[in-house]
Amino acid sequence: MTPIPIFYTSNFQRLKAAEVHYIFYKMIEITLPDGSVRKYESGVNSLDVAKSISEGLARKIIAAKVDGEIWDATRPLTKDASVQLLSFQDDGGKYAFWHSSAHLLAEAIEALYPGVKFAIGPPIENGFYYDIDLPEGKTIGLKELEALEKKMIELARQKNPYIRKEISKADAIAYFQEKGDEYKLELLEDLEDGTITFYEQGGFTDLCRGPHIPNTGLIKAVKLLNVAGAYWRGDESRQTLTRIYGITFPKAKELKQYLAMLEEAKKRDHRKLGAELELFMFSEKVGMGLPIWLPKGAALRDRLQDFLKQEQMRRGYQLVATPHIGHKNLYVTSGHYEKYGEDSFQPINTPKEGEEFMLKPMNCPHHCEIFAHKPHSYKELPIRLAEFGTVYRYEQSGELHGLSRVRSFTQDDGHIFCTPDQLKTEFLNVLDLTMMVFRKMGFTDFTAQISLRDPEKPEKYIGSKENWEAAEKAIIEATQEVGLPTVTELGEAAFYGPKLDFMVKDALGRSWQLGTIQVDYNLPERFQLEYVGADNQKHRPVMIHRAPFGSLERFISVLIEHTAGKFPLWLMPEQYAILPVSDRFGDYATKVQQELAAADIRGYVDNRNETLGRKIRDTELKRIPIMLILGEKEAEEGSISVRIQGVEDGDKGSMPVADFIAFFQELLAKEG
Amino acid sequence: MTPIPIFYTSNFQRLKAAEVHYIFYKMIEITLPDGSVRKYESGVNSLDVAKSISEGLARKIIAAKVDGEIWDATRPLTKDASVQLLSFQDDGGKYAFWHSSAHLLAEAIEALYPGVKFAIGPPIENGFYYDIDLPEGKTIGLKELEALEKKMIELARQKNPYIRKEISKADAIAYFQEKGDEYKLELLEDLEDGTITFYEQGGFTDLCRGPHIPNTGLIKAVKLLNVAGAYWRGDESRQTLTRIYGITFPKAKELKQYLAMLEEAKKRDHRKLGAELELFMFSEKVGMGLPIWLPKGAALRDRLQDFLKQEQMRRGYQLVATPHIGHKNLYVTSGHYEKYGEDSFQPINTPKEGEEFMLKPMNCPHHCEIFAHKPHSYKELPIRLAEFGTVYRYEQSGELHGLSRVRSFTQDDGHIFCTPDQLKTEFLNVLDLTMMVFRKMGFTDFTAQISLRDPEKPEKYIGSKENWEAAEKAIIEATQEVGLPTVTELGEAAFYGPKLDFMVKDALGRSWQLGTIQVDYNLPERFQLEYVGADNQKHRPVMIHRAPFGSLERFISVLIEHTAGKFPLWLMPEQYAILPVSDRFGDYATKVQQELAAADIRGYVDNRNETLGRKIRDTELKRIPIMLILGEKEAEEGSISVRIQGVEDGDKGSMPVADFIAFFQELLAKEG
Repeated sequence: MTPIPIFYTSNFQRLKAAEVHYIFYKMIEITLPDGSVRKYESGVNSLDVAKSISEGLARKIIAAKVDGEIWDATRPLTKDASVQLLSFQDDGGKYAFWHSSAHLLAEAIEALYPGVKFAIGPPIENGFYYDIDLPEGKTIGLKELEALEKKMIELARQKNPYIRKEISKADAIAYFQEKGDEYKLELLEDLEDGTITFYEQGGFTDLCRGPHIPNTGLIKAVKLLNVAGAYWRGDESRQTLTRIYGITFPKAKELKQYLAMLEEAKKRDHRKLGAELELFMFSEKVGMGLPIWLPKGAALRDRLQDFLKQEQMRRGYQLVATPHIGHKNLYVTSGHYEKYGEDSFQPINTPKEGEEFMLKPMNCPHHCEIFAHKPHSYKELPIRLAEFGTVYRYEQSGELHGLSRVRSFTQDDGHIFCTPDQLKTEFLNVLDLTMMVFRKMGFTDFTAQISLRDPEKPEKYIGSKENWEAAEKAIIEATQEVGLPTVTELGEAAFYGPKLDFMVKDALGRSWQLGTIQVDYNLPERFQLEYVGADNQKHRPVMIHRAPFGSLERFISVLIEHTAGKFPLWLMPEQYAILPVSDRFGDYATKVQQELAAADIRGYVDNRNETLGRKIRDTELKRIPIMLILGEKEAEEGSISVRIQGVEDGDKGSMPVADFIAFFQELLAKEG
Repeated sequence: MTPIPIFYTSNFQRLKAAEVHYIFYKMIEITLPDGSVRKYESGVNSLDVAKSISEGLARKIIAAKVDGEIWDATRPLTKDASVQLLSFQDDGGKYAFWHSSAHLLAEAIEALYPGVKFAIGPPIENGFYYDIDLPEGKTIGLKELEALEKKMIELARQKNPYIRKEISKADAIAYFQEKGDEYKLELLEDLEDGTITFYEQGGFTDLCRGPHIPNTGLIKAVKLLNVAGAYWRGDESRQTLTRIYGITFPKAKELKQYLAMLEEAKKRDHRKLGAELELFMFSEKVGMGLPIWLPKGAALRDRLQDFLKQEQMRRGYQLVATPHIGHKNLYVTSGHYEKYGEDSFQPINTPKEGEEFMLKPMNCPHHCEIFAHKPHSYKELPIRLAEFGTVYRYEQSGELHGLSRVRSFTQDDGHIFCTPDQLKTEFLNVLDLTMMVFRKMGFTDFTAQISLRDPEKPEKYIGSKENWEAAEKAIIEATQEVGLPTVTELGEAAFYGPKLDFMVKDALGRSWQLGTIQVDYNLPERFQLEYVGADNQKHRPVMIHRAPFGSLERFISVLIEHTAGKFPLWLMPEQYAILPVSDRFGDYATKVQQELAAADIRGYVDNRNETLGRKIRDTELKRIPIMLILGEKEAEEGSISVRIQGVEDGDKGSMPVADFIAFFQELLAKEG
């Protein structure tokens, strides 16, 4: 029998006498993620649990997920619970780490700018920020950040614990009234008495729900990245605050790597590369957020579409094409008007007949109408409709960002109408297609999040319990069968069905959400879709929405940054450049180009009156993967001198054109 | 020396004594279309001119174009003029013939329905109509038309001449006041005294500008086609009138042929075939006039696009992709807002930022922005941008018609930016592309209309005189070089440049306007487009708009009716159907299908549990060109029994699959 470990909680002093009495006399069961159950005295905390496993583990633990909620690692556990210990490597760990770092930043600001008032300071995807209202006459610009960083490091070295305090609303109000912080007072207005907590580290106290890391000493590396203006509560009519962005790490090395990655990301910024490689442009006259595809970008986009079209045809999809607008009533029927109507592009009125049309926010209502236009037998199912459909959402100009946040984007959309029995097979097919697409594009590291019902709130969801159970089971089994690593989130399903989102890691280690598969019991209901089953009765089909790329615009933005513009060879708008050493070889260059074109190899001749060195440099800038250099010798022999960019043994020497074609086909084949 | 022919005019009685005196003592010169000049005594009419050439010719002449204006053949010529004699075969001849037929219809209606009032009765593309207001209690439906037709024939046989009378406004008003016809009185309000004419035949007099044929006896065949309601002056708030449609011919045989053509056209109606062949659909929920392409139609459309894309790439075009909407100001800049703004889809408002976007009525402004986004040297020109761009125009619901009149259509649009010197070469390239496209689609009979400036009104046009002259010369020479038959219309050019429209004749002999090439000096000006010339100075490029199909929707509607759904083999969504004689051969059928798919031949297996006869009938209905029948013998031999639809020697007997593939390639090759 394993001896029962007993530990005192590290924040024992915060417990009331009655509690102390209680927890010392109660044993609780802690279930770990591997399913093992351990018994502890009530009042133990997650850090204690970690220590009971190993000291090494305990050193990494900075928070814990307790029954699905992220807690301080030092918060006492007083009843049976599932506990997942979180390190900085876990999303929940980063969340707590950067949240605590925001408090540390605030402490540093208060030390250097007494009288400062604090608004909000949340963790974000990469780091954290704090919105502050500086005392009259004080400002913080980029050059003030270094002093703040130093102060943060100094405070961190004090290893002050983050201490959680439950506090009454009246006491909380009194505290901030005395401090004179109207922002915190306004935030307090929305909180209910009994749910309010303060966190305190060193000399700084904040209104905060937590969770936090055990102490400031864990924060070893600090970088304040930027200063910007922000409106209090995002409302332009209210105070302008100063927002300071930062990021922190448990190790100096990690910060260094992160800053190097930021530097590389800047070089790969798809907006910068998109302009340099002449892939796309924006025009103020046409409208911001509306990408205009230049010839090379349009060719790339077309090639992506053709590739997916072929893959889809092979998998039994049928391509359709539907209008870019629809009657407002169509979207009232589908429910999209309720979702997007007020905040997006407004309805288009028409003269005389007073009809109201809308730019389509989604393709699905159109595909439902196609399904509905004639009766179907179960024998025809599944029906798989696919379309590269452009949809429109109005984003505020400040939110637009290159191709990743636009006002019109083209979904590689598809809808499968099937029987409930066919759901798993169809889900498997879609998984297979999506993973195939990612691999073909050179992404090797991807996982998925499965979003299921909240099992405790069945009333939130439409569709029968049996269908939901079957669908969830189908999704989970399908991902297991294809060996896709997943995380499962309960309660994250849409009200109309469970879904799966792909998370794809790029060459810089950044994760992007690309590709979605969504089960839908709602639209078939709203559009009254039906098929006649083997039992001769009418049944409602299940619908699967899916988009392997997600949106072409966003996908291409990720692809540009992932490859730094060096797309897979098969995708390259221009696969080679012929560089004649002088214009005497122009005719031979054209002849070679024609031979390559006949073999379906794309490229151009650089017949400018420039030096070979200059031509090579420009080819590199354009990320053209293959240079074919021609001179006296090559023209005589009927050969070409082949140089591959960006690989060590790139100089392939001289070879006949036919050999190059074979070599090129091999390169393509290697891409799979 | 040719003797001078002298004739008395056939409506001599209408001339005043002074005129008679004058015309008898003056000789005039009549120039005929072949350039020959003939002298006649003033007062001669066109019919007399015809008689002076041959009696046979005179019998066919029903009107004349005098100095570009269509006149009665019997109207006296009193000064030198160009005269083109018009028969029923000429558009101008048909115009007069059907105009006169409308008067004959009115005479018949007045005979059978005394007290009827007449609104307007114009000739139309195919025939004519008359809008009438019947006396209280009287109606005309389809079954009343026969009696009207009989009456028309009876009146026609009286060979009553159409007599032109110039009349003062006061006399005209007095006439219709006495008759009590408020419609004609209202029409008279808009006319100026001194320009008013009446035409009289038999007992019927109408307010009319003419021209008319010599007499009713030329009308030998009459068919009244339809009765419909119409608003007086197209205004819904005014009286509802009865509109009677009819058509007439100089020969009974021509009417018979026309009615047979109508019958065939009804069978080929693209709306009917589009539904039967499952090519496209409309949905009231999505909105009328917005075509939804079903899988087979989308495949057809995709194939047309791919075909044109490839042809364009070969000709140095670059594909781009631009948004479907643009800032309202973009179209104010381009001038399209002024043209379409009020009557089309209204601007799309946005929340918060108050921007106004519009559905794009044209792609050209977007392409101008692409040209403008970076500086250009003359060495880069011509730049040829192409896009399958969907544009939007609001048509009233009553005007919508299948795919030929829609609210959103996809242009196979392209814009060439070139130097004035390059205009002719570019025009030749576009002519070559367009004619190639038509031939590939199975259209063999096409002509073009060239629209030039009105040489007498140079102030109406923008762009320099030199550029216009060069452009017009380039267009005319280019059409001559490719041997394209053309008609040239002076004064029909747009204010911004000359253009060329293709007229394509379909299998039923109907002409369709498809494909346009337009030179444009205006948009480069409005968008301030520039290139740097060899002289290092800035120059404005010329722009050519061109669309070989015109619009995909309209083109496909014509293609469906032209081919009756039997598209060229290369375009067919499904090229063959495999018909196993029983389900025992399902596996063999699938094997054959796979072999054909590997050879890029598209089709399906009809493995329904139906008789072979039924399967063959259904294949015919679907217009599948090739049936592959499989039974015991074929499965044993590894062969297929091949039957081609709609040709005399369609039964090709049994052959190995490989032989069929070769045979199929031959069929494709024959299509060119």
